[in-house]
Amino acid sequence: MSTQPQPPIDRETLADCETLVADLARAGRAAQRVLARMDDAAKAQALRSAAAALRRNAPAVLAANAQDIAAGEARGLPPAMLDRLRLDDGRLEGMAAAVEAVAALPDPVGEVISRSTVPSGLDLARVRIPIGLIGIIYESRPNVTADAAALCVRAGNAVLLRGGSEAVRSNRAINAALTEGLAAAGVPAEAVQLMPTQDREAVGAMLRAAGLIDMIVPRGGKGLVERVQNDARVPVLAHLDGICHTYVHSAAEPEMARSVALNAKMRRTGICGAMETLLLDANFPAPHAIVDALLDAGCELRGDLRAQAIDPRIAPASANDWDTEYLDAVLSVAVVDGLDAALDHIARHSSGHTDAILTADAAAAERFLAEVDSAIVMVNASTQFADGGEFGLGAEIGIATGRLHARGPVALEGLTTYKWQVRGTGQGRP
Amino acid sequence: MSTQPQPPIDRETLADCETLVADLARAGRAAQRVLARMDDAAKAQALRSAAAALRRNAPAVLAANAQDIAAGEARGLPPAMLDRLRLDDGRLEGMAAAVEAVAALPDPVGEVISRSTVPSGLDLARVRIPIGLIGIIYESRPNVTADAAALCVRAGNAVLLRGGSEAVRSNRAINAALTEGLAAAGVPAEAVQLMPTQDREAVGAMLRAAGLIDMIVPRGGKGLVERVQNDARVPVLAHLDGICHTYVHSAAEPEMARSVALNAKMRRTGICGAMETLLLDANFPAPHAIVDALLDAGCELRGDLRAQAIDPRIAPASANDWDTEYLDAVLSVAVVDGLDAALDHIARHSSGHTDAILTADAAAAERFLAEVDSAIVMVNASTQFADGGEFGLGAEIGIATGRLHARGPVALEGLTTYKWQVRGTGQGRP
Repeated sequence: MSTQPQPPIDRETLADCETLVADLARAGRAAQRVLARMDDAAKAQALRSAAAALRRNAPAVLAANAQDIAAGEARGLPPAMLDRLRLDDGRLEGMAAAVEAVAALPDPVGEVISRSTVPSGLDLARVRIPIGLIGIIYESRPNVTADAAALCVRAGNAVLLRGGSEAVRSNRAINAALTEGLAAAGVPAEAVQLMPTQDREAVGAMLRAAGLIDMIVPRGGKGLVERVQNDARVPVLAHLDGICHTYVHSAAEPEMARSVALNAKMRRTGICGAMETLLLDANFPAPHAIVDALLDAGCELRGDLRAQAIDPRIAPASANDWDTEYLDAVLSVAVVDGLDAALDHIARHSSGHTDAILTADAAAAERFLAEVDSAIVMVNASTQFADGGEFGLGAEIGIATGRLHARGPVALEGLTTYKWQVRGTGQGRP
Repeated sequence: MSTQPQPPIDRETLADCETLVADLARAGRAAQRVLARMDDAAKAQALRSAAAALRRNAPAVLAANAQDIAAGEARGLPPAMLDRLRLDDGRLEGMAAAVEAVAALPDPVGEVISRSTVPSGLDLARVRIPIGLIGIIYESRPNVTADAAALCVRAGNAVLLRGGSEAVRSNRAINAALTEGLAAAGVPAEAVQLMPTQDREAVGAMLRAAGLIDMIVPRGGKGLVERVQNDARVPVLAHLDGICHTYVHSAAEPEMARSVALNAKMRRTGICGAMETLLLDANFPAPHAIVDALLDAGCELRGDLRAQAIDPRIAPASANDWDTEYLDAVLSVAVVDGLDAALDHIARHSSGHTDAILTADAAAAERFLAEVDSAIVMVNASTQFADGGEFGLGAEIGIATGRLHARGPVALEGLTTYKWQVRGTGQGRP
């Protein structure tokens, strides 16, 4: 997100953006009603058709992407952002294959969640249905255009996409290919719409469109997620921070603790499931091996006084460190006296994403699983497993740390809701 | 809600109310962590203890209520409001019995929603847990104090209650009795807190307390629900309107159609599940019997031109009538050409609460169930069945027309969420 001062809001532009979003939303909702009537096989076929269209239109997509890259280079975008933006034959094939993988997932729509007959003789069924129109607001990766659209459509939802300015030509080309493929299989083009303007007020209008857009999913950095969570009137599915803890209990098996802690921090430091705080039990017998492994792997450690006493290479932690998501090779380390102290630390500092205990003590493990109030709680596993693919969900629209609707990795089921179907034989209520 | 002009907001009061709500929320959240560790039997026992305390403290509750009634009479409250406010031995016993009935409901917490082992060997379980701290904002009926508190506590939640000014003494006495009973069974008194001030800014502070209060349930008239939905930053579970439709299909059995339509409108006209619009298929052979029955029962009918042609006693409907929740013995009536026209009318005008089709044609019934996008869709039954008790849920915290989390009658399960419990054997992510 730009940190440059914003120009004063132009009331006319603001009204225009609201009208635009309302028009797009109404078109999307109408298209969604068509999608809602399509069965599993028809939606899967439409996604395979979209994947084929992506492959067919590869030259146009790559040409548009080359223009985005050239514009980005001229604007002086940093190399990491240019890399996220860049498409080639392999990445485009990966995008098409991902759409086909979503097509192959089981359709959650139509599932009967519960069914019963009540004393009045009414037959009540709760049946899974699409949510409706989903708004996706994302940053530079153009593959989100295809991934998010595929997940939404698979579960019968329409989607309104708003990508980053730097990828605008790529996103338009991908969206054109997708809708061409979907339309060939009977899905109205308005089921997958890309915001036609990069005006930032259009994002504000999406966030305020309660009743028109049913849910917003922000995909990107913390600045984006924070703005969306602060300004949205529409329900938001997201996580802001992944301040994940690993607690090495006194009864942890030393070699397992070393390898899992190392993986949790260093496998990839930039993902939301990466460990950011290591809690070492004062009675755990082998803290040095863990500390050595992390330092040897190039991780900076910042500890409380008792952690610093383990190794002089551990720097002092400030009060902020316990609430910091580094997303880097930096880790805060505290020594705690037993399970209760670990639970207290986690209750105070966890962002509710993923927290783990390493222990061979089953009772301690079950207490941790029961009492840590995060979306994902783990025993004897790396927090880096917090991922829809690793959870067997096929793909995820995001990871959510809110408490309502869906939590943790959110995939197709999280893109559905339910209705009550009531079948009677002429009952009036007594 | 008062329509008098409000005094300008006092910044100091506003800050005070925010501090107050934050303090109450923190105390409530701490108490909730105790509740979350209590098992089914302990929570049920605590509610039975609360019911006993309500009975034991009946003299104090009735004395407080008599003061509220006297104050209300002095302020000139209308008789209907005084009746909602008034408690007597029978109503107090009903309140205690309702708390015991909630105690007898099955505890949803701990239910394993799904469980699987993924290729990495991790064992994944989604387990139902309490939501956390629920805010209830309600109007004159003091029984909501006990009902809402019991439902929240049964599912392991703490609750922050903010009742109407006219019932302030009654609510305090009921809350004191409940917390006395809960505390005797080991539930901290802060699990059920009543807002100690009637300052309207305190309601605003509750609505803005995202991260401190997990969900708000407004219980009361449309003015209250509208304010809560407009101002809340915390997720809201509610319905604004119940504009419920009954469509009499061409293949409806005439006598069933007459009796169900009459029940849907006239059993009780003031509830959210009451029918507000009757759609008569142009090919339904017996519209006169339905119209006669409704008129004979004292219902005012307002129709389109084709409905007016059925009976001269049907007044002309204005454009607004199709979007009006009368909550009275008034009904809008339209004649439609077939199922598609009925679906179109409902898509345009339904509030998404409850809509019904009356028909002996199974294919038409299934299309209606599939395509009407409301929280509750019914075949051959009165829309007045839209109720948690009638749905076998025991009791309801409210009826929700939003699309996320929980829809239709929301009871104990809707007061829970889930977490992922992951059990490993030392896995690092490849």
